[in-house]
Amino acid sequence: MNIDMIHAAAQRLAGHARRTPLLSSPFLDDIAGRKLWVKAECLQHTGSFKFRGGWSAVSALDPDTRKRGVIAFSSGNHAQGVAYAAALHGAPAVIIMPSDAPKLKIDNTRALGAEVVLYDRATEDRDAIGDRLSAERGLTLIKPFDEPQVIAGQGTCGLEIAEQAAEQGIENADVLICTGGGGLTSGIALALEAHAPTLRTRPAEPQGFDDVKRSLATGTIQRNARLSGSICDAIITPQPGNLTFPVMHRLCGPGIAVSEDDCLHAMALAFLRLKIVVEPGGAVALAAALFHGDEIEGDHVIAVATGGNVDSDMFQTALTRFL
Amino acid sequence: MNIDMIHAAAQRLAGHARRTPLLSSPFLDDIAGRKLWVKAECLQHTGSFKFRGGWSAVSALDPDTRKRGVIAFSSGNHAQGVAYAAALHGAPAVIIMPSDAPKLKIDNTRALGAEVVLYDRATEDRDAIGDRLSAERGLTLIKPFDEPQVIAGQGTCGLEIAEQAAEQGIENADVLICTGGGGLTSGIALALEAHAPTLRTRPAEPQGFDDVKRSLATGTIQRNARLSGSICDAIITPQPGNLTFPVMHRLCGPGIAVSEDDCLHAMALAFLRLKIVVEPGGAVALAAALFHGDEIEGDHVIAVATGGNVDSDMFQTALTRFL
Repeated sequence: MNIDMIHAAAQRLAGHARRTPLLSSPFLDDIAGRKLWVKAECLQHTGSFKFRGGWSAVSALDPDTRKRGVIAFSSGNHAQGVAYAAALHGAPAVIIMPSDAPKLKIDNTRALGAEVVLYDRATEDRDAIGDRLSAERGLTLIKPFDEPQVIAGQGTCGLEIAEQAAEQGIENADVLICTGGGGLTSGIALALEAHAPTLRTRPAEPQGFDDVKRSLATGTIQRNARLSGSICDAIITPQPGNLTFPVMHRLCGPGIAVSEDDCLHAMALAFLRLKIVVEPGGAVALAAALFHGDEIEGDHVIAVATGGNVDSDMFQTALTRFL
Repeated sequence: MNIDMIHAAAQRLAGHARRTPLLSSPFLDDIAGRKLWVKAECLQHTGSFKFRGGWSAVSALDPDTRKRGVIAFSSGNHAQGVAYAAALHGAPAVIIMPSDAPKLKIDNTRALGAEVVLYDRATEDRDAIGDRLSAERGLTLIKPFDEPQVIAGQGTCGLEIAEQAAEQGIENADVLICTGGGGLTSGIALALEAHAPTLRTRPAEPQGFDDVKRSLATGTIQRNARLSGSICDAIITPQPGNLTFPVMHRLCGPGIAVSEDDCLHAMALAFLRLKIVVEPGGAVALAAALFHGDEIEGDHVIAVATGGNVDSDMFQTALTRFL
């Protein structure tokens, strides 16, 4: 992984991914105790930053390989990002999902042009299904984070943050990122190292699922004790990636872990003050910026709102509890 | 009013107002039956396009006049736009509101730095209060729409639409705008006349409050029969302005009137597919784009989502009813 791959991805994404805005509100500055900026990746195509990595990976394939198609394992944002990126390239996409995935996510992924293959979590091995389909059809697997072209695509978000920070005269800032496997976080860290070295990249995670924070603190890859039971399910992964962890270890400041209540509160404030829809896992960094000011060093804090794919019930819970 | 005033306002707004994004979703295209774009002015500072007009008017004052301060009558988006624009200029702002205005709006306007003067609708004359304060302190009145520098500021949104349409290769489009007094609509119409003459500006209004539609159809200024009882209260005005109507009459296509249910439905779809928060009055144009396709001519339709200042209860009503 290096910055040249991110620059190349940015060229491929130009005119296809959105340059998402950097939003702010004086009301949020007051809560945070410093100037707070929100990089609104929930406004990206398919409602999350994952479209960047999906487009980067699909567009990096040689035309014959791409024509055979791509495959991904995901029931969430990665599925939609890959499906839509493939569709826009005219390439087939197969998305493997558990049969108990929410119907809306299955329908959305199909509507974005993908073939959805369902498997039974209890009785079937998704990897075996994926291997068989890949072999039969010559599909290319697009992993959700531990994949160079995916990291390069996510890193384009960091190039935009560097540009937007310069436009606003921001020099001394912590850049907080909702972190699962670390694809976005390592990509942004590489982009900022090259283009905004005074900005500090820092992972934000839900309490109880802070594998990256603990991995950074100990210097070795740590696992999460469990993988379910969080409303921030979009960013829960077993452990940091083998490609992403060394980058995060070299470049990131300490992680910050936030409560689920703080995520819901941050979602409500993003509704009220920024007029954006953020999902629980996408609100982790904003929650850290708003409610963990004592762990932040910069005069400014930039929080990446990574996604907005939240169902109506969960969103209403956040509004009812905190507004 | 002319295009030079809009260009001059754009220069004054540069670096202060946000260039709001032009969003889209394949799911919304399917409903609309054509390519649909949403100009997300709900993401503007203070949550509506009104910041543009407020900044334009405050910044156009000579420094001595500005130092004495500005005054506006509003309990809504104009109040917040003027208050914040004045505060950022270091100028005093007095906002006159009815004493029964929602507490949140009063608190927000105060928090944005304005002095809020409350009056009793039943027993007091707000114009007399305004005249007295203006005379005593030398305040300059900033009217909500029938004021050249306000129209010029709103017109900067039209300059951005022209640029963004060109970036996307959009040539044959109806541009639908939530219309109250016509400040935004006439400003955008002037900007598009100069910079994107193949785009057609068209007002959108709530059914029963379609004074602009009827005024355009008859060629003379028509009034609304009533001024209350709409969830789209942000865009209900007695009649088109004396400055705005001639511009709209010269440049706009026919108006479109939509039901309140369609507005709530559009809000729910904007939540689900675009991840933005839109208020009922700000969703009128999107509702027209989605549900009145038979009245639209263009291959593309661009709807301006003019504001996002909606309370949690109303927003939840939209989600519960339509998702």
